[in-house]
Amino acid sequence: MLRALCLAALLPFAAALASEILEDKDFWMSQGEKDLKSSLGITRNMGRARNVILFVGDGMGPNTITAARIYKAGEDGSLSFEKFPNTGLLKTYAVDKQVPDSACTATALFSGVKTNYETAGVDARVKLNDCVGSLHEEARVSSILEWAQQAGKDTGFVTTTRVTHATPSALYAHVANRRWECEAKMPRSSSLCKDIARQLVEDEPGRNIKVIFGGGRQCLMTNSTPTEQDPIDTWACSRRDGLDLIDQWQNDKKWRGFTYAYLNQSGDLDSLDIDHVSFVMGIFANGHLKMENERDKSRNGMPSLSKMTETAIRMLRKNERGFVLVVEGGMIDFAHHRGHARQALEETIQFNQAIEKTLTLLHEMKAIDDTLVIVTSDHTHSLTINGYPERGGNILGVAQTSREDKIPYTTLMYATGGMNNFQYERKGSGFTRKDPTTVDTTAWDYSHIAAVPDDEAHHGGGDVAVYATGPMAHLFHGVHEQTFVAHVISYAAQIGPHKGSSAPGSSQNILGLLIGFLLIFLMS
Amino acid sequence: MLRALCLAALLPFAAALASEILEDKDFWMSQGEKDLKSSLGITRNMGRARNVILFVGDGMGPNTITAARIYKAGEDGSLSFEKFPNTGLLKTYAVDKQVPDSACTATALFSGVKTNYETAGVDARVKLNDCVGSLHEEARVSSILEWAQQAGKDTGFVTTTRVTHATPSALYAHVANRRWECEAKMPRSSSLCKDIARQLVEDEPGRNIKVIFGGGRQCLMTNSTPTEQDPIDTWACSRRDGLDLIDQWQNDKKWRGFTYAYLNQSGDLDSLDIDHVSFVMGIFANGHLKMENERDKSRNGMPSLSKMTETAIRMLRKNERGFVLVVEGGMIDFAHHRGHARQALEETIQFNQAIEKTLTLLHEMKAIDDTLVIVTSDHTHSLTINGYPERGGNILGVAQTSREDKIPYTTLMYATGGMNNFQYERKGSGFTRKDPTTVDTTAWDYSHIAAVPDDEAHHGGGDVAVYATGPMAHLFHGVHEQTFVAHVISYAAQIGPHKGSSAPGSSQNILGLLIGFLLIFLMS
Repeated sequence: MLRALCLAALLPFAAALASEILEDKDFWMSQGEKDLKSSLGITRNMGRARNVILFVGDGMGPNTITAARIYKAGEDGSLSFEKFPNTGLLKTYAVDKQVPDSACTATALFSGVKTNYETAGVDARVKLNDCVGSLHEEARVSSILEWAQQAGKDTGFVTTTRVTHATPSALYAHVANRRWECEAKMPRSSSLCKDIARQLVEDEPGRNIKVIFGGGRQCLMTNSTPTEQDPIDTWACSRRDGLDLIDQWQNDKKWRGFTYAYLNQSGDLDSLDIDHVSFVMGIFANGHLKMENERDKSRNGMPSLSKMTETAIRMLRKNERGFVLVVEGGMIDFAHHRGHARQALEETIQFNQAIEKTLTLLHEMKAIDDTLVIVTSDHTHSLTINGYPERGGNILGVAQTSREDKIPYTTLMYATGGMNNFQYERKGSGFTRKDPTTVDTTAWDYSHIAAVPDDEAHHGGGDVAVYATGPMAHLFHGVHEQTFVAHVISYAAQIGPHKGSSAPGSSQNILGLLIGFLLIFLMS
Repeated sequence: MLRALCLAALLPFAAALASEILEDKDFWMSQGEKDLKSSLGITRNMGRARNVILFVGDGMGPNTITAARIYKAGEDGSLSFEKFPNTGLLKTYAVDKQVPDSACTATALFSGVKTNYETAGVDARVKLNDCVGSLHEEARVSSILEWAQQAGKDTGFVTTTRVTHATPSALYAHVANRRWECEAKMPRSSSLCKDIARQLVEDEPGRNIKVIFGGGRQCLMTNSTPTEQDPIDTWACSRRDGLDLIDQWQNDKKWRGFTYAYLNQSGDLDSLDIDHVSFVMGIFANGHLKMENERDKSRNGMPSLSKMTETAIRMLRKNERGFVLVVEGGMIDFAHHRGHARQALEETIQFNQAIEKTLTLLHEMKAIDDTLVIVTSDHTHSLTINGYPERGGNILGVAQTSREDKIPYTTLMYATGGMNNFQYERKGSGFTRKDPTTVDTTAWDYSHIAAVPDDEAHHGGGDVAVYATGPMAHLFHGVHEQTFVAHVISYAAQIGPHKGSSAPGSSQNILGLLIGFLLIFLMS
């Protein structure tokens, strides 16, 4: 009775509350109903994938995606691929390591075969640095690009790294060490083996790839010229054997009677005569392409990932048999290695924009229903989102103050990192944590704190997510080995090992599709 | 020509290699084919969920699952729920916080409504500690247990925490502060409000819950007796108002003419006369149940999560209209808060065993096809898997040695943690990291290193995964708000807000199902 009286007295109070808070019960109930309806409306696309576009965010683990979502669109926002109807989780370990590098994971993603840490395009019988082993045909694995070419499809890849770097290398090369991007990094004992750049230009499937966009001029040509905007990467291989593989690539196309174009700056993409060029190679930097925030955005600068991706799709769509394209957002990983969270998130957003652009293009081209679009990552990083920051707070900012040392700490942290990440300083005879509120934690070069100082922030060993839409995209579900990506591509596009009789898009399945439509009609 | 000769010379070498390495190209190709076949065989279960079992691993983020998998079954192993056909990702933020607690996330999971940090069973119009606001019917949200009861189903919950703790409280209570588990922790200004324990025993849907298993005797009865094995938790509420709610619970059932049983030790579960008891309350500890590794496993001790779950299912299956059961693995979170990685992984394994046991039971009962089983988590922790440890290495062990301070570090680390996690010690005028190889990093009470010292390791803000099997389980796909779980349960079981006309299992859909079978038949 007392409670009833009190409740009556509360009525005006509740009315006042309701006007302040938008996310009340009704809000969530109506959102739930909307989500449910849209989920109930999802049907399986049982067709054959004429085209496949595989997006790989290098080092883009689940926490990176969540943080990038908050960074760009707030906690309740979504990146484009987060709206894809299908998701799964992938195990990323290497045959010999619990936590992998990008070469062995790229081999898993592109060839369906896990292998040893730091090797690419070979199976686990080839140990790191075992040049002789990597030459044996039996130990070499073929990639989705090779399968696609054999099926008469066009192929291409786009990356913000050197075109010879770990991830793209697994598309066309077979190497016992990912560092063998050019001959100068190869030991004498490996003289029997070809460097990655030469495999791209001289061998199959590399020389048949129609679109190659990325960096790495210093690996392709001897004495590539550095500029202030585009220096030589002294950590990576620089060709010294006198070869000019860019020239060689052009000659190869000429001798084989193909039209071709070589591009070296952003504006070249605009002037490319897509309809009259069969092969295009765009090498836009000596080393990797610059981070988005450091990029010269003029015609003479380096292109964005979106622009390269758009051009690649416009080139490849010309083949009536379809195409397979791989797009790597390679700088997410590099930013993480330095603990530069903002840069990693910004590169994730750029990667997302390339996907957004792709979806728009596929709609325009009426190719959305016969293109399998997959978004995933090769491995995670140790980025964490931690503490109890306020809703709507800057994801790059401070979460709360430590009850132990009374100093604030940031929401984002890493497990390992370089000395810039190790934010403790001597004070008297003890030591003290640096106060992140005294510096700009949203700066591009701010390294978020790490637990252990090392030469850099290392890869994580967690599962990555995979998001998919299009024909047979529903095969991405549950938890699988990372190799599953290549196997699904093979089946969905009917290329490579799983090209078989009970194929998607076959007459029996078209009947199935018709019955499916009937079913949807009856249920609606 | 030279290369051809060399290759010929390699043949015996390759044969030698093949015998050493099991995970070669053929291994992965055959595994991929198997996975593909099994994925192609997955059909949608369009039926209605007679039963729903929702498993919540508290604080069990994606990295915890990966690490527990490696801990139990190796990198290539699987936990039981990882084989479920459907997965999705869920956003865990609270209405007012980027990183949530377990009360607001439980409200999202069980009622489909996000709310404020540390509140349960009320919407975001109720601020933390706003007792008066929480009394208003308009701001209260109803849970899946209430929906199930209204539909004539039986309901129950099982937890390793106090039955009044944050996660279970959102099933039946409406509180402006999760700490109000009993009256002694409530401020005078909240005297109008009922504590959580009283809401469980006195109010709906609490008093109609058929199975209640967990800890928390100190919140339910005044002056509960501590023992050496089962002490009072001095951090939590201890009832002092003279009430004995366990007695009150029994009287309520007696007065209402129901058979009932009160259990307080593991052996009581064995002697429970399931067929002749309608209501059962098992309160097995004063505070939370002990961690699996500390538990007295005798008849007089505390039961395992598996045993409680099995008994709950055997109790609830008696209702022909079906049941809704929630099972919480609550100690994963507590272990993480202390940085006790091994304990967190072991509790994850125990949680997994309860799921395994459930699947076996459902098969035995021929209820596997009409039971929707969902496994998820309320929020992540900051656990990371990092560095490049060897394949097959102990996940609790050392990853590698830092190139910076030349000291080894463990594979697992946290972002924040108590002083036990902060593994730096003064040395001369500087400081140095403790060498983890000098201690047992696999000990139950070893706290893995954290970047920032605080009072404990804090929750993470990453997305959690959701795994599902059974009727309408395919609605778990893509990325959703955490609230989606309750909405799918409502729809799949046709209880609560989404009970509607275009229901699963209705005649139109049975027709759909038949056509579906025809489709499968034609395609096979």
